[in-house]
Amino acid sequence: MAFTFSRTNISENQIVFVYEESAFSGVRKIAGKVREDIAKVFGAKPIGIEYTDLKDTAGFFEHPVFFGTVGKSELLDRLAAKGNINLFDIAGGYEVYSFNVVDDLEFDGFTFESAIVIAGSDKRGTIYGLFKLSEMIGISPLSGWLDAVPKKLSELTLTKEDSFTSKTPSVKYRGFFINDEWPAFGNFCNKNFGGFNAKVYEKVFELLLRLKGNYLWPAMWSSVFSDDGPRLKSCELADELGVIMGTSHHEPCMRQGEEYSRLRGPESEYGDAWDFKTNRDGIIRFWKDGIKKRSAFENIYTVGMRGEADTPICAGNSTEDNVNLLRDVIRTQNALIAEGCKKDISDIERLFVLYKEVEPFFWGDDKTGGLENDPVLDGITLMLCDDNYGNLRTLPPEDKRDRTGGWGMYYHFDYHGAPVSYEWFNTNHLPKIWEEMTTAYDNGIRQAWIVNVGDIFTSEYPLSFFLDLAYDFEKWGTSDKNSPANYTKEFVKKNFAMLSEEVNEDIAGLLTGYTRITSRRRTEAMNDRIYAPFIYGECEELIKETDELMKKAQDLYGKLSSDAAPLFYELVYVPLCGNLNIQQMWALTTMNHAYAGIGSTIANSLADEIRARLKADRKLVDKLHGVSKGKWYGMGLSEHIGFTNWCDEECRGPVIHTIEPADKPRLIALIPETGEHTEGGFWSGRTLTLASCLDPLVCGGYVELSTASAGKVSYSVSTQDDFIDIMEPGKSVKGGKSRSIFIFVDRMKLAEREFACGHVVISYEGGIINIDVPVNNPKLSEDLPENTFIYCAGENTDHTKYISIAPSDFTKKNDTDAGGFEIINGLGRSGAALKAYPQNTVFTRLNSPTVTYNVLVPEGGKYNVRVYTTCANPAKPGGNIIFTLAANGSSPADVNMIPDDFAVGDGQKSWEQGVLDNVRVKDTAVELSKGLNEIKIGAITPGFVLEKIVITPEGVTLPYSYLGPKESFHTTRD
Amino acid sequence: MAFTFSRTNISENQIVFVYEESAFSGVRKIAGKVREDIAKVFGAKPIGIEYTDLKDTAGFFEHPVFFGTVGKSELLDRLAAKGNINLFDIAGGYEVYSFNVVDDLEFDGFTFESAIVIAGSDKRGTIYGLFKLSEMIGISPLSGWLDAVPKKLSELTLTKEDSFTSKTPSVKYRGFFINDEWPAFGNFCNKNFGGFNAKVYEKVFELLLRLKGNYLWPAMWSSVFSDDGPRLKSCELADELGVIMGTSHHEPCMRQGEEYSRLRGPESEYGDAWDFKTNRDGIIRFWKDGIKKRSAFENIYTVGMRGEADTPICAGNSTEDNVNLLRDVIRTQNALIAEGCKKDISDIERLFVLYKEVEPFFWGDDKTGGLENDPVLDGITLMLCDDNYGNLRTLPPEDKRDRTGGWGMYYHFDYHGAPVSYEWFNTNHLPKIWEEMTTAYDNGIRQAWIVNVGDIFTSEYPLSFFLDLAYDFEKWGTSDKNSPANYTKEFVKKNFAMLSEEVNEDIAGLLTGYTRITSRRRTEAMNDRIYAPFIYGECEELIKETDELMKKAQDLYGKLSSDAAPLFYELVYVPLCGNLNIQQMWALTTMNHAYAGIGSTIANSLADEIRARLKADRKLVDKLHGVSKGKWYGMGLSEHIGFTNWCDEECRGPVIHTIEPADKPRLIALIPETGEHTEGGFWSGRTLTLASCLDPLVCGGYVELSTASAGKVSYSVSTQDDFIDIMEPGKSVKGGKSRSIFIFVDRMKLAEREFACGHVVISYEGGIINIDVPVNNPKLSEDLPENTFIYCAGENTDHTKYISIAPSDFTKKNDTDAGGFEIINGLGRSGAALKAYPQNTVFTRLNSPTVTYNVLVPEGGKYNVRVYTTCANPAKPGGNIIFTLAANGSSPADVNMIPDDFAVGDGQKSWEQGVLDNVRVKDTAVELSKGLNEIKIGAITPGFVLEKIVITPEGVTLPYSYLGPKESFHTTRD
Repeated sequence: MAFTFSRTNISENQIVFVYEESAFSGVRKIAGKVREDIAKVFGAKPIGIEYTDLKDTAGFFEHPVFFGTVGKSELLDRLAAKGNINLFDIAGGYEVYSFNVVDDLEFDGFTFESAIVIAGSDKRGTIYGLFKLSEMIGISPLSGWLDAVPKKLSELTLTKEDSFTSKTPSVKYRGFFINDEWPAFGNFCNKNFGGFNAKVYEKVFELLLRLKGNYLWPAMWSSVFSDDGPRLKSCELADELGVIMGTSHHEPCMRQGEEYSRLRGPESEYGDAWDFKTNRDGIIRFWKDGIKKRSAFENIYTVGMRGEADTPICAGNSTEDNVNLLRDVIRTQNALIAEGCKKDISDIERLFVLYKEVEPFFWGDDKTGGLENDPVLDGITLMLCDDNYGNLRTLPPEDKRDRTGGWGMYYHFDYHGAPVSYEWFNTNHLPKIWEEMTTAYDNGIRQAWIVNVGDIFTSEYPLSFFLDLAYDFEKWGTSDKNSPANYTKEFVKKNFAMLSEEVNEDIAGLLTGYTRITSRRRTEAMNDRIYAPFIYGECEELIKETDELMKKAQDLYGKLSSDAAPLFYELVYVPLCGNLNIQQMWALTTMNHAYAGIGSTIANSLADEIRARLKADRKLVDKLHGVSKGKWYGMGLSEHIGFTNWCDEECRGPVIHTIEPADKPRLIALIPETGEHTEGGFWSGRTLTLASCLDPLVCGGYVELSTASAGKVSYSVSTQDDFIDIMEPGKSVKGGKSRSIFIFVDRMKLAEREFACGHVVISYEGGIINIDVPVNNPKLSEDLPENTFIYCAGENTDHTKYISIAPSDFTKKNDTDAGGFEIINGLGRSGAALKAYPQNTVFTRLNSPTVTYNVLVPEGGKYNVRVYTTCANPAKPGGNIIFTLAANGSSPADVNMIPDDFAVGDGQKSWEQGVLDNVRVKDTAVELSKGLNEIKIGAITPGFVLEKIVITPEGVTLPYSYLGPKESFHTTRD
Repeated sequence: MAFTFSRTNISENQIVFVYEESAFSGVRKIAGKVREDIAKVFGAKPIGIEYTDLKDTAGFFEHPVFFGTVGKSELLDRLAAKGNINLFDIAGGYEVYSFNVVDDLEFDGFTFESAIVIAGSDKRGTIYGLFKLSEMIGISPLSGWLDAVPKKLSELTLTKEDSFTSKTPSVKYRGFFINDEWPAFGNFCNKNFGGFNAKVYEKVFELLLRLKGNYLWPAMWSSVFSDDGPRLKSCELADELGVIMGTSHHEPCMRQGEEYSRLRGPESEYGDAWDFKTNRDGIIRFWKDGIKKRSAFENIYTVGMRGEADTPICAGNSTEDNVNLLRDVIRTQNALIAEGCKKDISDIERLFVLYKEVEPFFWGDDKTGGLENDPVLDGITLMLCDDNYGNLRTLPPEDKRDRTGGWGMYYHFDYHGAPVSYEWFNTNHLPKIWEEMTTAYDNGIRQAWIVNVGDIFTSEYPLSFFLDLAYDFEKWGTSDKNSPANYTKEFVKKNFAMLSEEVNEDIAGLLTGYTRITSRRRTEAMNDRIYAPFIYGECEELIKETDELMKKAQDLYGKLSSDAAPLFYELVYVPLCGNLNIQQMWALTTMNHAYAGIGSTIANSLADEIRARLKADRKLVDKLHGVSKGKWYGMGLSEHIGFTNWCDEECRGPVIHTIEPADKPRLIALIPETGEHTEGGFWSGRTLTLASCLDPLVCGGYVELSTASAGKVSYSVSTQDDFIDIMEPGKSVKGGKSRSIFIFVDRMKLAEREFACGHVVISYEGGIINIDVPVNNPKLSEDLPENTFIYCAGENTDHTKYISIAPSDFTKKNDTDAGGFEIINGLGRSGAALKAYPQNTVFTRLNSPTVTYNVLVPEGGKYNVRVYTTCANPAKPGGNIIFTLAANGSSPADVNMIPDDFAVGDGQKSWEQGVLDNVRVKDTAVELSKGLNEIKIGAITPGFVLEKIVITPEGVTLPYSYLGPKESFHTTRD
């Protein structure tokens, strides 16, 4: 026997939800939502009856759904008493529930064929249990917020085997912060709901709860949560549904900044200054009244104080003055809160956020001790922050990980601030979130996680991950180094169950693909001077990658059924096309400038393409604002092009370059990997070098022909070298177009020659273009270890003078008892990174895990080792990120990734550079011998996450590229 | 009684030209041209009769015109014998003639009412005399070449008072060189004449002779003068007309480079190598046959040897080897020439050109003596050269000014070579030519002047000046420091006699105007990074100046009568509009880039203007090629836009920048003199400074408003300062447009306040723009000497931190017995320059003439004195250009304008920079005291030509500008 959901069962009223009056009203409301969910899947909505009516109706149906909260449910008590369910596992638990499928349930003399019994340890446990049922029948946690349509089922059967007891959430408070809500979220609210009221928040609460979150900071720039419901309606609704409310990091005592703005004044009882020194009484009264107003609800009280509107407090004063002031403030707040809540202060959840300038007041400085050890903070959750760009600012000191009150993390998916705001569509990449938040958790940050999601819209993907990670760290956390990829797969499956596995894989690829690109640089921080034109083809590759992803998204969108299309549009298409279109536009602009700079008519074609991207951007936003009767109006309004300040003031679109084509036929030959070019003129012609075949694995390359003139230019291509084949030489190229002349090297014909230089000639009426094709064809000893990187540079081709190593291509990995390096897929700008675990440990030289890379160089001497890491911040202000570097068994040198002048914060150059580029780079000189060398890298401080190693001979400066050179030739195991 | 030309007189055959059979046939031909000239002026052509027919016809007419050459004219002998004319003044003279109006001339029993008798000392004397008559009746020397139409006269009367004897030309050989004839002159020849033949040269010879030149180097890149007449026809014609032929500087023994190309070959008797070492016999035979072929004609034989096609000889060899080789070459050539001409070698005109690499072979180097004192050069004219950019490379050593053979100068109005070729329309400015060629003359260069005129077309203006200067140095040379202006006036009058004086002044202004602009930088060397955008308004002024000149030319051209219009078109309109259109296009491009860089929609309007300039360029050339049945076809074909090499290979047009306007209304306020700008945003707004009123003579300035957005932006302007008036504030500005907000300072209202800072606010919906208006209002002591320059900088306005002095605004000028400074009007980039005369003297500290400048500074300390001079080269390779600089009576310091690494030549950076920028700059530190200081500049070496002085406090770097800051505030005599 089993519990079968089917349209027949439901429409024949065989499935019945049983409501108890004693239940939390929020639980009853959620049960209603679950019944709606069932209707969406099976086409019919189960009826609900009151528990008091059960005995009168029980005979008419076979499948009751019971739900309740321990201590609030006679029904549960009775079922437990009868042994139908077991409440021991959950009673006294925190947000846990048991989900039971019970056959042949006898009740008051009736026998139900099968019943579902959802028992929660508390209000949220019950609600999570109810929504679990929704999930089990295929309802996306995003439904209700996004246009998620579930897969229609004819029937679904649950059996005893589907029974389980839920886990206790890994992190106690899990939530998000709606912030920087203008122009997007604000316009959205006003248009759809008439303001920031309970109608909006009902949507938001549902999203939070379905995602198994429990904690919310409401929008705050122009609204007051406790006034705009209207009145307390939003507070009441939150409490009803089990949503714990906070206020943002700078709004203490459940009173919002905007609230003070509304209440202050020369005549106001709250005074007219947000200043605890000059208006102490007014501010205290303001807080007191706020606590009073909201003490009936479940809150976490922010304590501390900043300046108005998210600015520093008492900017001019000394650290000591500020520390003393803050101590006074918090002591006062503690007293007010205890009094207002009529509880012992240690029983009240409070939060102190170490944001920006508040941080030193906590840690102290050289002269002044901070609040770090002050008893005033006992029992208060200390909420650490990221640097607004997704990198943790600090970690709890090892000896304080278990302090009372615990630790929290205020993280950002959206930011309005320096160096560049990012508030448009999601640019966050799961591997980065995973790496940072697992670090947080492993270092003891487990009490509260909150993430700034800006306007929510398009952040649903990383938000789901963030909340799932917080809920089930065992599953998604440190144990699974491939968690982001696995999560994405499951996320897509949950949301697009109606689609084939293949299509789901495509969708996962799109989500991963676009965020991988925005993780290299956020769209708002892009401009025409980031990716290098030509060099290592990085700009061209960005254009290609974005093109492919956008085409794929477009194709898929066009093909999707009407149930999948809206959600795909909101969740994938909009953020993907929105971001990539702009990323591509900037790359096109870079190329436009480069081609205009050499007088190529391709510049003019690119100019048209840039204009098309700009048009596409407007079109995308306009369409978004128009779909579903303008449901998403506002959500595309944030500025996202060409920031020249941290905010969008004076932002600039691309400057489009065009040229006037020449009259005389003029051909431009260009080596795409360097931009080296010539028109082959009698006086000015230069011999080009196609250097790609210096890499022994590469058998070809191409020369790009375009024109400086308007019309068609005819040419001929020839070579006298037998080992060179010219493919698709063509005969002419038109103005505005390009043609690739593919040059292949037949290495077989080189036989024993370890080096050769081919020569190709392109002739046209305006000149003769000479191209050298140097070829390395080394005979490698079979004794060379796996992953031996071989220096294959050409003499006159500076851009080839390097060995570039992907960190995962080590020859040896030496784990110790203390730990070992592990590969994190997807992390960093190059696709995989290396980090030593456990990540809450500082290693010593004695127990440091290491990785060893083999490099073969033709000359002994000084070399530069450039190490690329993530832009992690040190665990403590003023701290370092240290690793060791040793060549050939020499004594390992300590290398510090953190520059001397480093500090996290607005206007700090090194930090700003790091968060914009998403990388940190450090050069170290080493001595290498002719032949084989070992380069050993050892872990010391956490935060060292290795992305790339580039070795160059002393004195070589590689041409500028954003990502650095691609991985070099190396031996591989057959 | 008098000689009256009138249509009646002529058509009634009262005016008769009398031809003698004994006359030079060339003289007879020129007489025919003069009769045509008369026809053009009076509408009827005088008849000519043979002298032998005179007695039969004498009774029928009253006004004979006699012409002849001493020793070739029985007529002259008889007239002289009778005392009608006097031949003593001219007999034995060189190129002189007497022009006589004789009344009541009795001859063979007849009495003529009046006669003109033109008697020449030699063939050219006679021809010059004949053409003098043409000039006297108003025929332009350019007629026959350009479409010069003379003013129609009803009658013109010459009397005895018009009789005179001509001067001996100042320079013995005066001519030009048709060079770099492709694509312009070559296409012109082929289209109009079917090749480089005698038909073309007849035109060229006539131009040369009418301009009183006598010497020609023919085109040489694809033609052979002695073969293409066809055959010797061009040579014969030259000789007939008295034109002395040479070959270019690198074509010895009257044989052209192209000739060797045609004759050489493995089977050739001349061998197959232009190499005196390996093919001595072949080369000697080649020269010998050439001399034989042309010895019958009047020639100047080029001697020496360079490589083929104007390249260095034996580039790899040592100086010693080359000197020895050259000595051998010239010795051999001397012998061949003497033998071929059957004359004593000392009676044969020869020329050795010290061009480029040949120069050190003459002067020698540290190790090797050159040919300087070698007797092999005795009697050979040593032709020095300019640096191809119009600056003399070297001057004769003082002790050798009077050597046998004398000195010559090979000068350039057109150049095909580094750093940038200039071969399109004339870019030469008379004051520069005057300064350089008077220097040449005063230093003993008087034997031969030849100028490379490229394709001739549009160089007629400077060419006329060059040849007139060479012919009559007394009139146009050193004695008249205002010679270029006076010459231009006379030149215009000669060519546009039919126009009013006022219009002639306008035309002179146009000629001076366009060449003044091209003298700052040649059109071919212009690009978008020359004139600074905004700074000191120099780019905007260039746009304004070019606009005004082009409009004036256009207006005038539209109004001119049909007799004046064609010549105006060729002589003024085409080179003026051709050059200025492109100069302006580049300045527009600079501004386009600057506005695009700040996101202003003005960039888009400028983009349209740039495109219009490009279109206008094509249109101008197309029209030129179409006028008068395509007469000038080819003359516009030379490349003239965007050289990136010395030649036109890979040249590039402007890169046009456009932006996509923003959606939100955004206003950009900009201070035009600096480019400082803001949109007045809440976070990013900056206070601008309008610094113009720091100059006590300036009472206003303006702020330019434009938009970053497409639509109209409304704003309001206000001030609270009573001394500030805002004029024409407007209310809105449209996308793509600008509006100037004029801010005036009423200094009367400041009364005694020596400094004030006004404040203006511009408000609009996107922000608030604040503008500071600092005002200096000093009360100056009446004791301050005239021309005291006062430092009036603002504190935060770096661009104002200077004193800029025009060299003519000295307080004292101290001449000595040895010489004194004089102002040369029109010279240099700033409009006037200062140079010490005599210019063939090196002064000592004891006799050095000086000028003193007064500067008043608020603080004592170190200052930098930046001196701008012409880009003159030292008089000798490795030499210096020295002046002295002293502050406040301190001991004068020697300052050398020539950088240490300086050398004239391709690839020499300092030299290239100098000739492109037309300036040389030198910084010297001086100590100034608080208050009044005297800065004294003294002349030492010739070549020091002062253009500008800019004084800045130590550590101040002024923003980049091409021309440097404009002259500063200074006291003036009432």
